[in-house]
Amino acid sequence: MHTRIEFDSIGSLPIPGEAYYGIQSLRAKNNFSISGEKLHPIFIKNLAIIKKIAAITNYQANNLSGTVANAICEACNGIIAGEFQTEFIVDTIQGGAGTSANMNMNEVIAHRASEILGGTKEKYDLVHPNDHVNCSQSTNDVFPSAGKLTVLELMPQLISNLSYLERLLEQKAIEFSDVIKMGRTQLQDAVPTTLGHSFKAYQSVVHRDIKHLIAITAEMYTLNIGATAIGNGINASVEYSSTIAENLARELQLPLKQADNLYDATQNVDSFVRVSGVIKTAAISLSKMSNDLRLLSSGPKTGFGEINLPARQNGSSIMPGKVNPVIPEVVSQVAFQIVGNDVTITMAAESGQLELNPFEPIIFRNLFSSIELLTNAVMTLADNCIVGITVNEEHCRDQVEKSVGIATALCPFIGYKKASEVAKEALKTGLSIRQILLKRNWLTKEKIDDILDLRKLAEGNVPSNDAAVGAVTEIH
Amino acid sequence: MHTRIEFDSIGSLPIPGEAYYGIQSLRAKNNFSISGEKLHPIFIKNLAIIKKIAAITNYQANNLSGTVANAICEACNGIIAGEFQTEFIVDTIQGGAGTSANMNMNEVIAHRASEILGGTKEKYDLVHPNDHVNCSQSTNDVFPSAGKLTVLELMPQLISNLSYLERLLEQKAIEFSDVIKMGRTQLQDAVPTTLGHSFKAYQSVVHRDIKHLIAITAEMYTLNIGATAIGNGINASVEYSSTIAENLARELQLPLKQADNLYDATQNVDSFVRVSGVIKTAAISLSKMSNDLRLLSSGPKTGFGEINLPARQNGSSIMPGKVNPVIPEVVSQVAFQIVGNDVTITMAAESGQLELNPFEPIIFRNLFSSIELLTNAVMTLADNCIVGITVNEEHCRDQVEKSVGIATALCPFIGYKKASEVAKEALKTGLSIRQILLKRNWLTKEKIDDILDLRKLAEGNVPSNDAAVGAVTEIH
Amino acid sequence: MHTRIEFDSIGSLPIPGEAYYGIQSLRAKNNFSISGEKLHPIFIKNLAIIKKIAAITNYQANNLSGTVANAICEACNGIIAGEFQTEFIVDTIQGGAGTSANMNMNEVIAHRASEILGGTKEKYDLVHPNDHVNCSQSTNDVFPSAGKLTVLELMPQLISNLSYLERLLEQKAIEFSDVIKMGRTQLQDAVPTTLGHSFKAYQSVVHRDIKHLIAITAEMYTLNIGATAIGNGINASVEYSSTIAENLARELQLPLKQADNLYDATQNVDSFVRVSGVIKTAAISLSKMSNDLRLLSSGPKTGFGEINLPARQNGSSIMPGKVNPVIPEVVSQVAFQIVGNDVTITMAAESGQLELNPFEPIIFRNLFSSIELLTNAVMTLADNCIVGITVNEEHCRDQVEKSVGIATALCPFIGYKKASEVAKEALKTGLSIRQILLKRNWLTKEKIDDILDLRKLAEGNVPSNDAAVGAVTEIH
Amino acid sequence: MHTRIEFDSIGSLPIPGEAYYGIQSLRAKNNFSISGEKLHPIFIKNLAIIKKIAAITNYQANNLSGTVANAICEACNGIIAGEFQTEFIVDTIQGGAGTSANMNMNEVIAHRASEILGGTKEKYDLVHPNDHVNCSQSTNDVFPSAGKLTVLELMPQLISNLSYLERLLEQKAIEFSDVIKMGRTQLQDAVPTTLGHSFKAYQSVVHRDIKHLIAITAEMYTLNIGATAIGNGINASVEYSSTIAENLARELQLPLKQADNLYDATQNVDSFVRVSGVIKTAAISLSKMSNDLRLLSSGPKTGFGEINLPARQNGSSIMPGKVNPVIPEVVSQVAFQIVGNDVTITMAAESGQLELNPFEPIIFRNLFSSIELLTNAVMTLADNCIVGITVNEEHCRDQVEKSVGIATALCPFIGYKKASEVAKEALKTGLSIRQILLKRNWLTKEKIDDILDLRKLAEGNVPSNDAAVGAVTEIH
Repeated sequence: MHTRIEFDSIGSLPIPGEAYYGIQSLRAKNNFSISGEKLHPIFIKNLAIIKKIAAITNYQANNLSGTVANAICEACNGIIAGEFQTEFIVDTIQGGAGTSANMNMNEVIAHRASEILGGTKEKYDLVHPNDHVNCSQSTNDVFPSAGKLTVLELMPQLISNLSYLERLLEQKAIEFSDVIKMGRTQLQDAVPTTLGHSFKAYQSVVHRDIKHLIAITAEMYTLNIGATAIGNGINASVEYSSTIAENLARELQLPLKQADNLYDATQNVDSFVRVSGVIKTAAISLSKMSNDLRLLSSGPKTGFGEINLPARQNGSSIMPGKVNPVIPEVVSQVAFQIVGNDVTITMAAESGQLELNPFEPIIFRNLFSSIELLTNAVMTLADNCIVGITVNEEHCRDQVEKSVGIATALCPFIGYKKASEVAKEALKTGLSIRQILLKRNWLTKEKIDDILDLRKLAEGNVPSNDAAVGAVTEIH
Repeated sequence: MHTRIEFDSIGSLPIPGEAYYGIQSLRAKNNFSISGEKLHPIFIKNLAIIKKIAAITNYQANNLSGTVANAICEACNGIIAGEFQTEFIVDTIQGGAGTSANMNMNEVIAHRASEILGGTKEKYDLVHPNDHVNCSQSTNDVFPSAGKLTVLELMPQLISNLSYLERLLEQKAIEFSDVIKMGRTQLQDAVPTTLGHSFKAYQSVVHRDIKHLIAITAEMYTLNIGATAIGNGINASVEYSSTIAENLARELQLPLKQADNLYDATQNVDSFVRVSGVIKTAAISLSKMSNDLRLLSSGPKTGFGEINLPARQNGSSIMPGKVNPVIPEVVSQVAFQIVGNDVTITMAAESGQLELNPFEPIIFRNLFSSIELLTNAVMTLADNCIVGITVNEEHCRDQVEKSVGIATALCPFIGYKKASEVAKEALKTGLSIRQILLKRNWLTKEKIDDILDLRKLAEGNVPSNDAAVGAVTEIH
Repeated sequence: MHTRIEFDSIGSLPIPGEAYYGIQSLRAKNNFSISGEKLHPIFIKNLAIIKKIAAITNYQANNLSGTVANAICEACNGIIAGEFQTEFIVDTIQGGAGTSANMNMNEVIAHRASEILGGTKEKYDLVHPNDHVNCSQSTNDVFPSAGKLTVLELMPQLISNLSYLERLLEQKAIEFSDVIKMGRTQLQDAVPTTLGHSFKAYQSVVHRDIKHLIAITAEMYTLNIGATAIGNGINASVEYSSTIAENLARELQLPLKQADNLYDATQNVDSFVRVSGVIKTAAISLSKMSNDLRLLSSGPKTGFGEINLPARQNGSSIMPGKVNPVIPEVVSQVAFQIVGNDVTITMAAESGQLELNPFEPIIFRNLFSSIELLTNAVMTLADNCIVGITVNEEHCRDQVEKSVGIATALCPFIGYKKASEVAKEALKTGLSIRQILLKRNWLTKEKIDDILDLRKLAEGNVPSNDAAVGAVTEIH
Repeated sequence: MHTRIEFDSIGSLPIPGEAYYGIQSLRAKNNFSISGEKLHPIFIKNLAIIKKIAAITNYQANNLSGTVANAICEACNGIIAGEFQTEFIVDTIQGGAGTSANMNMNEVIAHRASEILGGTKEKYDLVHPNDHVNCSQSTNDVFPSAGKLTVLELMPQLISNLSYLERLLEQKAIEFSDVIKMGRTQLQDAVPTTLGHSFKAYQSVVHRDIKHLIAITAEMYTLNIGATAIGNGINASVEYSSTIAENLARELQLPLKQADNLYDATQNVDSFVRVSGVIKTAAISLSKMSNDLRLLSSGPKTGFGEINLPARQNGSSIMPGKVNPVIPEVVSQVAFQIVGNDVTITMAAESGQLELNPFEPIIFRNLFSSIELLTNAVMTLADNCIVGITVNEEHCRDQVEKSVGIATALCPFIGYKKASEVAKEALKTGLSIRQILLKRNWLTKEKIDDILDLRKLAEGNVPSNDAAVGAVTEIH
């Protein structure tokens, strides 16, 4: 195989002749044989977009000739279109604050742009990875900026999937609005509710999570692009630095802006922690919901048995006919992963030192992964579970009727203490609350009917307490 | 010692005659001998406020007589004023979703209100803990509501302390604005900056944390008060439920409101997770800053030695004259605690089931603690550290001058490759960048002076690159 | 109030005349107004024990006169006996690697020992906190050593409580060994088991946790005592350093030993992380068990309803007769706390730098707390829950009989596919597995009886598969 | 493309004609489009090994005919040899407790074994995935067992790499044993040490981590194989169940054994949590060491500058000549990831319910990843960093000499208070400790030389304190 020799300040290495990457990429690949995972394709794309807009801005600022800038742009367009993916050889977990990722990009573009200008990959005489491709830039501003653009590109799908889930939950809430069932607190029979209320509550928390995800994503619009190495914009001209963010904004049609304090924006990565925190919160809301779905569908014979999740696959390799809540289970696992990722992101953010946080690679790996895992989990939850849920309506009502939880509704009329006695007697004798009440003669039959109207109870429409215990009854 | 016998549906227990708490409090105390910590005093106060306003609202809704409501209010006023603190005997870590805390409150108020009405603690004939004090309420709405009010009461001090810290940091930024020092990335010499920029960056991140803390605190205004047991408001009349939140808001002069979906608001505790997440982010920003302070003050002889933290105490029991960065160290430890607390809160929130999350007690313990620890840590950081920081200005400048990091500024003029050679030669020979440049004759002495002007470098005022390498120089 | 003036290298402060603590304690108290929690009493005791044995060892090594050593010992004996508790005024969360705790101890002892020798608290002319009390010591060796002794003192109660719990679980396993019930995987009906097996499994995991706790506690026997500041034993004579550990071991009747590498032992705190990790694992095993108890006791009417937890307190302030699984709930909350504590400990351990980890105070706070919380949680779990659990035996058997999970046992005889058909038909028609089998005529009635013998199924005594499907049956 | 139609109890799906996987694999793939990651190849291999040994054991137990067992074995051999990798199509993050992974394996083997026996992939008439391949097994025993075998296969490389690292550290400790340098605690100058001691301490903690990793790995030898669905071994004959573990042990030459309590072993996954905990501890020890390396190599001009890490790649895209500590940085990031993974594993373990923990897939993903990431990180740390570290010996000694930390050694001779004065005067005046001592005339020149002998100080060989302050000097 043909190879060429490339040099850097450390020494030299043979590079495969056809490769667009260069010596620094190869060194990094050798240094960081860690996870086997490459850079995220969307991150690569966004880093190439930054390189392209930087070239244009540098041309406008008279830092690059039109020829070189044009060649860089054309090279970038290829990468943005998905070409050269195999040229990005560095591990996603890398030391060096992302310099390896940045130099991998710089080298690929420089070689490709040289080629476009009629040169060869043998030397950087036409387009140089540092002087031209990286002109006015530092890893320390382009790497985090590409990370933010990646979050901005990944997040809409998560939000869209959550919105889809929200709509399904709302539909289910309507579908189940007449299904009276027992509400449970602490897994103990509480008071009646409807299955519609349950799904409406799920819809409500998803709605709130969406709202917060949208709000926090706005944090990502603020870039430290133009900061170069530490925030003072060294080697970036005023012309470049003052326009690069708006040029990026125009290209991407996003309200991007340069941070007010570029030192702060280069050394602090709190915005990623905050985004992760909001994602984590959404994930655990969904995990709680998934737990509920598993509880409500437990059975089929010896569990709660109120709802049926769609059978998505055989549940067991040994137990015939078993169907398991596999979709909620995968959602919870994704939530556990995201909580762990959040801890990783937090530790990495805490460990920044002085003018830079060099641990952005692990932050990005975890943040991108959290978004994508949740995006996918939400989709399978929606399509493979929520949409197909059915209810065992009769069983739900039976359970309410045999429960003693409805004794709660008696409190305003006979007081907590007497209501307790009724509840205990019902549990002991197996008689219904109604039967005991009729026997006791404390309330008229009409009043009993009114109080114990399950539909009203489930809706919380308390009958007017004309003789409410607090105001009138003597209790002792 | 005189005792009275109290009864509940489990049985009976002797209670100290003078105690205002009752049998349910005592059972809980015995069941939960866990942490030895009592309920937070501010939580107790806010729960009492809710009880008071609930009594008034119940009176307005005709659920309680004026006499009973008045007595309850008077009892609550005592508790709010700080009396009866020793009557709250239940452990802050408790099972039962806070029922023990609520019943402890209900029992103390009922006994005290009975006393006010001329009764005794022997019986609840005048004021009953469930029927009167807890009228129209459930633990499941008053307990989380009191938790939110507690956060709302604790947070302003944290925000105020952070604002104070921000002002001090800003003052230091101004004080140090002319101190040229070496910027470091990855602990390696990077490019010049000023100490003013460093403190301005700290001020900037604190400013952002404050902004987010204020925003997220607004989450706490939404209460599930009126939801009672599961959200359907069972046993709370429409009159009560529709006015309790605004009555509380008026009393506390806070924009409190009832949640739109009370089922959701009763079973999901995501808002606490979000608040914790924002606090955690602030804490790690401060820990990073504290790490920086420890690095910059390392020495006095064999470290960075750029700044001096005020000597707050002898550093060592064995090493005379040693002064340690004890304040930044305590800040980092508080941050570690808060990250752990956030994990605890997250797990507790994830573990909610169906109509309720019964793990709010551990959420509150950790959330209140996170706020208070950070509040205190910020104060000692401000007063015992930041305010007294001094700088070794000459040493800072010496370090910049002997550093080779300023070679970066050469790139736009002689290219990255030649600049690298200069840097390497400087490191090898001990000659200064300037000396090597003068020897090499690539640039005029005036240009060299211009490029290497430390003040300009530190400020990032790049000299106009009239002969910028990217556009003009041939590189090979 | 009478005060005296004390001096240190920072300056001077007035100290209450009767106080035994001194200026360094007071400075620390003022610097670290963080958590309001004082040092753990058992930590104080063990630090005093170290001080006492150090004095004796110093006397033996001719570093202290008999008079001074005697006075120090007598002062220590008072502290060990529980006196002077209020003299320990420093916050448990403190910067300075524990120097404040150590100096608080040194000052109290010095003042007390001076008093014993007829001196006053006005000056340290007879016994000096650094030169005498701290002789041959550094905070960096005595503080972590006292921490390890504290763990060693706290752990036996945890292990004892777990052993007690294990015995109760074993008793319950025997008591419930004949109770046939449905086993559930993924909350879906699986195959029959006995409640005895469930409790035996709980006993088994607790047994394993105990084994690991005992094993890991042995890590605590290795002390860095004698290392002084960084491990080289500076200022500790060979005579002292070579005997202090064994003197401590003799005093405490523990197999304590000095670390082989004192540098390592001073800068690395991994042993605490490992202990925390094992505690955490035990905690989550118990939380899983607690979840199970909540599931199995769910109801009473609309849940699994297999077992009854003892009613420990009224479950609700609003719902009469409700009894909640409050004890398992508090156990889970303790587990969440311990997981969070483990994260805190991990971060603190990771943050050590060079010759010391200065974050031991937060490590100790969390580690001691984890042990004690778990100790208490285990006790309430044992005494207030496990011991009183009863079973609804008939309901358990009914559930097994109506379940289709027993179809699993058919696989070796009719194959997975046919067994699935039977299971599905049973679910659809409501017929029992037995009824369908009899109808289908695949197996003789005797064989069916044999296969579906619940007792055998529950015990997993598979009937001899003389006609096992795998070997013989044609399946298609 | 040719397809065949496969059926299961849910319905039917077209399968690519050439595929060895079947309908259940495809359903799972569609349900769990989550991470895009496939099952770990070593997990696949070990699951195939279990299937093979299960077939042999089933043959021995007369559950499978020789023909079928042979065909299964041959199919397994192909998979074990690395064939059919693309047939394993299910996502590594999956609901269903691993059933999809198990059925994917069962289907591939059944189709392949059928083919071997001359059948087609059109039907399972010769070898059936459930009845034959999965004979006597359940996902619930083979899946966790394969997970443990995977850990057992991955762990030796981690331990081997750590041992290699330990040897390098030991060599460096010897190489640097004469390099006197300043020890630092809390980043402040403490007392002299040698660089050899530093590396010896690193070697020591790595040694301990290895010891604990080896010990905890033994946990993995205990398998629940034979437990089938919940532990009672339903559908596994006594002959099979009592020999399968030892057959596996013989095949793999590992001391595998069946768990004493198979119920416990099926529902509790604490052993994975413990393994993760020990890995985590090792990771943070290495991260601490990596932090140290970054500190000690900070500079080159404005940092500690004591050691030089090998230049592995250009440090910066903008700053010429900059070389960064990229290898320690990647090690720390791996540690952060592993801490996060440990939280994920912990949460998943805590969430097990009743007879099974269905969250093993996420546990395995994180545990395998933690082992592999650390294995790789250790290797790059050893080969690309430790081995090439050099020291700036003169600078190290210079720093010691100019430091005031050596004043500590004076305490036993002139007392802590006077030593403090000397230290403070040295800091204020710039005079050396020696100069001040000579001026003060407290000690003879010979004594001063003896006390301040750097070599002795660094080694902690305290000169005999014939006139030790504690015993003799009057202090006031």
